Amino acid sequence: MREVCIIGAGIHRFGRFEKTVEEMGREAAVMALKSAGVEWKQIEAAFVSNARFPVAVGHITLTPLGRTGISIIDTRAACASGVTAMQQGYMAIASGMAELVLVLGMEKMPRGFLNPEGTYAPWMVAQGFSQNSLYWALRARRHMELYGTTSAQLGKISVKNHRNGSLNPYAMYQKAMTLEEVLNSPMVNDPLTLFMICSPNEGAGAVVLASRKEARKYTSKPVILGASVHRIALFPIVISPTYRYTTKVEPIPVTTLAATAAYEKTGIGPADLDVIECQDSDAFSEIEAYEELGLCKEGDGGKLIESGDTEINGKVAVNPSGGLISKGEPLGASHLAQVVEIYWQLKGEAGPRQVKAARVGLAHVKGAGGNTGVSILKV
Amino acid sequence: MREVCIIGAGIHRFGRFEKTVEEMGREAAVMALKSAGVEWKQIEAAFVSNARFPVAVGHITLTPLGRTGISIIDTRAACASGVTAMQQGYMAIASGMAELVLVLGMEKMPRGFLNPEGTYAPWMVAQGFSQNSLYWALRARRHMELYGTTSAQLGKISVKNHRNGSLNPYAMYQKAMTLEEVLNSPMVNDPLTLFMICSPNEGAGAVVLASRKEARKYTSKPVILGASVHRIALFPIVISPTYRYTTKVEPIPVTTLAATAAYEKTGIGPADLDVIECQDSDAFSEIEAYEELGLCKEGDGGKLIESGDTEINGKVAVNPSGGLISKGEPLGASHLAQVVEIYWQLKGEAGPRQVKAARVGLAHVKGAGGNTGVSILKV
Repeated sequence: MREVCIIGAGIHRFGRFEKTVEEMGREAAVMALKSAGVEWKQIEAAFVSNARFPVAVGHITLTPLGRTGISIIDTRAACASGVTAMQQGYMAIASGMAELVLVLGMEKMPRGFLNPEGTYAPWMVAQGFSQNSLYWALRARRHMELYGTTSAQLGKISVKNHRNGSLNPYAMYQKAMTLEEVLNSPMVNDPLTLFMICSPNEGAGAVVLASRKEARKYTSKPVILGASVHRIALFPIVISPTYRYTTKVEPIPVTTLAATAAYEKTGIGPADLDVIECQDSDAFSEIEAYEELGLCKEGDGGKLIESGDTEINGKVAVNPSGGLISKGEPLGASHLAQVVEIYWQLKGEAGPRQVKAARVGLAHVKGAGGNTGVSILKV
Repeated sequence: MREVCIIGAGIHRFGRFEKTVEEMGREAAVMALKSAGVEWKQIEAAFVSNARFPVAVGHITLTPLGRTGISIIDTRAACASGVTAMQQGYMAIASGMAELVLVLGMEKMPRGFLNPEGTYAPWMVAQGFSQNSLYWALRARRHMELYGTTSAQLGKISVKNHRNGSLNPYAMYQKAMTLEEVLNSPMVNDPLTLFMICSPNEGAGAVVLASRKEARKYTSKPVILGASVHRIALFPIVISPTYRYTTKVEPIPVTTLAATAAYEKTGIGPADLDVIECQDSDAFSEIEAYEELGLCKEGDGGKLIESGDTEINGKVAVNPSGGLISKGEPLGASHLAQVVEIYWQLKGEAGPRQVKAARVGLAHVKGAGGNTGVSILKV
């Protein structure tokens, strides 16, 4: 298998904008091309993730850069859409099908909490289940009961991520906040308060992938994309929000499934990671990710945030970008923005939020339908 | 790059059925697995093409076979949806990401001629443009004016394909018809009569792809998938239906673009082909495909059908399955069914429609948005 490198990255700030999704996607793509020193006409294939737009949105976004006849493929998998695009870009280079490809993620989300029709069984809707309560709050509550995880620990995730986000000019919310502010913000789904939950929003991210040989033409220090892995949960998570900590019916959590595949592929383990961007759709999800990615054992996630080890200057920085909690979550764009952040961190280009001597990083997304994915980058 | 093999194929008959798209897809998948001698739990990734169903239809189709946690990705590109799935399956094996993958295409189309909202500019709709007239009839008419192509030649495409379809138990229409019947059927868009046009319908097709090493465990004679290439037109074809033969503004037709990439990748040229399944959405499209795939020079397509060289016992059999004209066109399924037909032809398993000593075959799809693709198979 050929080695896959990342040689350029671009982003459109996450937030709310008076722009079309195509405009935002194109800006991120152009920034990625420019940063790589590559022209659009050199790109041999493009993979475009979004979760909410009709087929051909990728064409419409990229063909204004020039009709070069290449394959442009739209791909989607809810919150994990971006990793399906990354996986395809990875395969295109690794297989030898192409020397240079563009991977782009972009999105515009509607405002407010999402409760998509058809996602939940009628009895769930009747009981007032929303995306947040179903996926997040009930799991968090069960984790608190089983392992003594506290609201303050959840709050500290938000405090860390908002502080990191205050250092990120591409985040939606660039404002540090105190633990009291987080805990006293309106309760949405007990134990999750408003400032513990990410906001659906808009934005884009893009990277240029190259073979090792091609990468050498553009940089003496390419970042290596060791793996980009998409997986689907072994258990239909929508059925039982507390399954993980109650029934133990899911033999392996899907995050662990994807991470294990990526660890095996790269020979990298959780102890090797310097920096992580993970799916913190809510504060509890980051605690769960600590455990399922293998940073600590099940039940110890709350202690890990308290230890300070996941701060920017800790053992392994988690969500130095500010995570989804401060950036917001535009589904199709989120994994690309994670990969862009890890790329900048490994290049030493992350400015005031730079993680010292970062050499190995991981990006993790998880979403509806059990779609989950992990990308591992290294220098 | 690792060699990619096809070791099994399955199909759900094309037509109209009292079944869900998931049921049809699953039947084709199970047939492909069975024919390969592979169990579902061995499959490491699945790529599912459809053009009309919401995200996760691939999961919903395949997870009843077992929740194995693999990546299942939905992919779409109008009539060319299937080749985007084939391209991904190809990359997964060629890159070394997987040893065994499933590629599935499936669809249920609404009845009647399609005139999707938003596809055409308001002035076009006001002028009565429909999918057929816009894409097909005007091009056919211009070709007739420029090169002397005749209605009888168009009719002979239908006669051939309906004769071939009468030998195919998976075709929607299994009835041979005379040239008179074709020419005297209702005129839809001059010069295209009803029996020269494919019917939108339902169906599914699937193949199991394997690395060469893995394929050896299941068969001593694997079929090699030399290339699966998706491309997008260099010119926005929706703007000018007659562009190809009038303005010459499109430097290279997209079919030629995709075929050239596949020819270069495999070292195979048009003269090497024994059997072709091509996009005969209408009779003229097959004539155009003759020219753009390089079987003859531009303008000679009409003569080629008259020569008999594209009959099952001719120099290069085109659409021995009966093509879309007799099978109908379920968008996401059509390329997979083409690949299945070529696979059977190269294995010598095509029954009464078997092409003698077929060793090299090509499948071609072309559709809206300029999406086009070519797969090349060989033994």
